[in-house]
Amino acid sequence: MSAIDELCSELAKLPGIGRKTATRLTYFLLKQPPDEVVRLAAAIRSVSERIRPCSVCGNLGETDPCLICEDPRRDKELLCVVEEASDIGAIERTGEYRGLYHVLGGHLSPLDGIGPEDLRIEGLRARVANGCEVREVILATNPSMEGEVTATYVRGVLENAGVQVTRIALGLPVGGDLEYADGVTIAQALAARREMPR
Amino acid sequence: MSAIDELCSELAKLPGIGRKTATRLTYFLLKQPPDEVVRLAAAIRSVSERIRPCSVCGNLGETDPCLICEDPRRDKELLCVVEEASDIGAIERTGEYRGLYHVLGGHLSPLDGIGPEDLRIEGLRARVANGCEVREVILATNPSMEGEVTATYVRGVLENAGVQVTRIALGLPVGGDLEYADGVTIAQALAARREMPR
Repeated sequence: MSAIDELCSELAKLPGIGRKTATRLTYFLLKQPPDEVVRLAAAIRSVSERIRPCSVCGNLGETDPCLICEDPRRDKELLCVVEEASDIGAIERTGEYRGLYHVLGGHLSPLDGIGPEDLRIEGLRARVANGCEVREVILATNPSMEGEVTATYVRGVLENAGVQVTRIALGLPVGGDLEYADGVTIAQALAARREMPR
Repeated sequence: MSAIDELCSELAKLPGIGRKTATRLTYFLLKQPPDEVVRLAAAIRSVSERIRPCSVCGNLGETDPCLICEDPRRDKELLCVVEEASDIGAIERTGEYRGLYHVLGGHLSPLDGIGPEDLRIEGLRARVANGCEVREVILATNPSMEGEVTATYVRGVLENAGVQVTRIALGLPVGGDLEYADGVTIAQALAARREMPR
């Protein structure tokens, strides 16, 4: 297999990248200065060599515990539960959350054979055990069917942990258009309506 | 900058990959087994180290001259002129063409400051010079405005070379739908109509 074909098939393994895009990317790289291309290759290598999951929260980073777990300015009474480490980035970018995180590593999905034992639920239970600082656990799993099922399951696990368990609000996305929103979202937005402050 | 951010920004430099897709790809790679990731990095490096343009036709490959130029079964009387080396792959995949190629390395674009001297037109002229084997030059530049202008220019350059110069047919794409085709394509398809064989 030639180096071109090899790169095409490696790139085509990435999600959302088909054979055609892989070919386009390969020829794009062939037109770049070699040091640019070497920099990309090095970045890919180093991400696999230097990044590891935090043994406390499951976040991905270059240190263990991760920078968020280590940060003394973080509010240790708040624990936000997410499905994937990438969700932490999305929440961090809002700049609105100052608590800690817990990454489940996915969602419950019986059809795919993913049960509670495949998620980092035991670790969550241990972090919220009696005597810990956590006061509130925010369930920020995805607003999908699997995310809801997972949130409900985790809610049950934390039943007697003596912490408040909340769920992020579901409703219309900011900047969205009521006309194009799906019925389930609109129904959810109506059910979760709040009194307008004067 | 962390290894994650670094890979995100390297990936975001690729065409058609924005910040969000770059992040998604990065986290995808983080979930892959390390040897898979190393294989991708190696494929990227080796493409930049091992691939070079053919000094005869401009095709990209690991040998110079390239495998097509070297292939004795190729019809040396036919020369297909394309804009980019990636176009050769598209034509080769049809399995319908057995001649040689010539890569211009782009198209004429005065607005971007790309003139005839920036394309491999001198090389083409030399290959089609008197005494060569070439009988027909097929202009397969893109069916775009720039591609047409380039084809017209090359046609002029080869005026007195004593070879037949042809242009690939423009028309409706196979499997396309007349209703959704643009007017220029339909007009072209009408103008280039051919008698149906019985």
